[in-house]
Amino acid sequence: MTPPVPPASRPTLLVLDADPLPRLGRLTGRVRVEHADATTLAARLPDADVLLVWDFTSHAVREAWPGEGPRPRWVHTASAGVDHLMCPELTASDTVVTNARGVFDQPIAEYVAALVLAMAKDLPRTLDLQRAREWRHREGQQVAGTRACVVGSGPIGRAITRTLKALDVTTALVGRVPRTGIHGPDDLDRLIARADWVIAAAPLTERTRGMFDLRRFGVMQPSARFINVGRGQLVVTEALAEALRRRWIAGAALDVFEHEPLGPDSPLWEVPGLLVSPHMSGDTVGWRDRLGTQFVELYERWEAGRPLLNVVDKQRGYVPGR
Amino acid sequence: MTPPVPPASRPTLLVLDADPLPRLGRLTGRVRVEHADATTLAARLPDADVLLVWDFTSHAVREAWPGEGPRPRWVHTASAGVDHLMCPELTASDTVVTNARGVFDQPIAEYVAALVLAMAKDLPRTLDLQRAREWRHREGQQVAGTRACVVGSGPIGRAITRTLKALDVTTALVGRVPRTGIHGPDDLDRLIARADWVIAAAPLTERTRGMFDLRRFGVMQPSARFINVGRGQLVVTEALAEALRRRWIAGAALDVFEHEPLGPDSPLWEVPGLLVSPHMSGDTVGWRDRLGTQFVELYERWEAGRPLLNVVDKQRGYVPGR
Repeated sequence: MTPPVPPASRPTLLVLDADPLPRLGRLTGRVRVEHADATTLAARLPDADVLLVWDFTSHAVREAWPGEGPRPRWVHTASAGVDHLMCPELTASDTVVTNARGVFDQPIAEYVAALVLAMAKDLPRTLDLQRAREWRHREGQQVAGTRACVVGSGPIGRAITRTLKALDVTTALVGRVPRTGIHGPDDLDRLIARADWVIAAAPLTERTRGMFDLRRFGVMQPSARFINVGRGQLVVTEALAEALRRRWIAGAALDVFEHEPLGPDSPLWEVPGLLVSPHMSGDTVGWRDRLGTQFVELYERWEAGRPLLNVVDKQRGYVPGR
Repeated sequence: MTPPVPPASRPTLLVLDADPLPRLGRLTGRVRVEHADATTLAARLPDADVLLVWDFTSHAVREAWPGEGPRPRWVHTASAGVDHLMCPELTASDTVVTNARGVFDQPIAEYVAALVLAMAKDLPRTLDLQRAREWRHREGQQVAGTRACVVGSGPIGRAITRTLKALDVTTALVGRVPRTGIHGPDDLDRLIARADWVIAAAPLTERTRGMFDLRRFGVMQPSARFINVGRGQLVVTEALAEALRRRWIAGAALDVFEHEPLGPDSPLWEVPGLLVSPHMSGDTVGWRDRLGTQFVELYERWEAGRPLLNVVDKQRGYVPGR
């Protein structure tokens, strides 16, 4: 892919803002930084050379993207997923899209390990009993020797697999196409039918949307637990709630939801056996600085006319694997 | 050490009972099994060849052990620690003491990993917020790259060290005497002063009793967390509570206590930053069967006149390392 060529004059970098702002000090004097929010984005997009989607929770890009005429030649999102910004006009354009590939791998892998171990050791119940001042001995489950199926073979899914294997969990990885060490979608039902842990870490695309539906929860073992750290829309949430209520599976943890933030009225907070966390699996201390640094480094490549990294295949909706 | 020689007649195996009883079916016809509880133990001990301390929470052996005259030649406890049964008369006698070395290593190592990851990812707070139906994003801590100091270099401490290293935690192990890969007590203060995780997994002996006192908590970093999966008496509990209240350290988790079970009136249930669990770290599904099988296998060695395994050094109070 040919990299976009920077213009002779000082380029305009438009930032779709979120608090706290990115640290772009290293680019001072080399770039004209402008800011936008959801209401001003459409008006400012045509004048921008580069768009930094710092507010990765916003759907504003999809709504504001110009159909015709001038537009940024490069869009970078400070997130692993690009589902919130892709639209047919952006896909059809020659604008390059890059993502934050790499920043979230290790944190999310550790978060999944934390959930697996906490569920195996019945930690939520221990905390409930502590609150009730009640000493009630229980038996935990040994994690070593259990089986996991990780769905999503990108760097996040692979990091999860590495971490679970380090805990002696037998782990199968499922991707869009079978290749060495990675199962294809045809193996999915067979693998989740014998898994103790089913972990969703796939990008949201038309192929993955709603893939965890009532039928799939019915295939899983009654002792299985389901964890979603990918995107909320990978799961038919009402089907998961139903599977938990009917005890088709033993438990679940969701860190991502179709609508975020989850409102106080959501029934999900109280589904039995469901652990709800606020989309934080990838966010460890310093993560915003790491995202900012990653963008600055990409910018310097772009400025120098070198090929960008983390280039998204806009048709597929993610960075293709190596 | 010379193994105790089984008598020509069918030996008497006395079991200090706890529910559920051990499965000893494999020994049927080869041994006369009798049962005792704390009130009957003293009367039955003189007639027993072997004592199985199945109720490993009981201090009855220490109280009932005969000073003079006939006594069991072998005592096995279904626990890693022997502190609850040792007394000067037992130490001075030629009775062999064995323990459940090996059964708890992997479960406890996983339990410690569960606590480390849960604290790093702020999981207790996540569960509190879920109960309050409140979406509040927070930053977790990355576990990879942090430092742990594991105190206790027996198989449990070594298993904890292996598991933490698998999570890329830099881990130092402290034992009674320095040897290859193991620090001696002289290094302890230096190691805990820079540790993110201080983990107590030592046997309770006169050397280790109360070793985690106010001075030692004062040496730790304000960001450090303390975990005790050894014995309650390793810690001056009031000093730990004080250190947590003063925020000398960031958090702690206790699975063991000076007096177990912890009563509903204990102030420990509500110490800020303290996670209380009911002495369950080593107990995964099937653990009682594993303990029973381990005893049966040892019994068959004893019956055959072969040397016992897991023989406790009664002066030191644990099985010496290889």
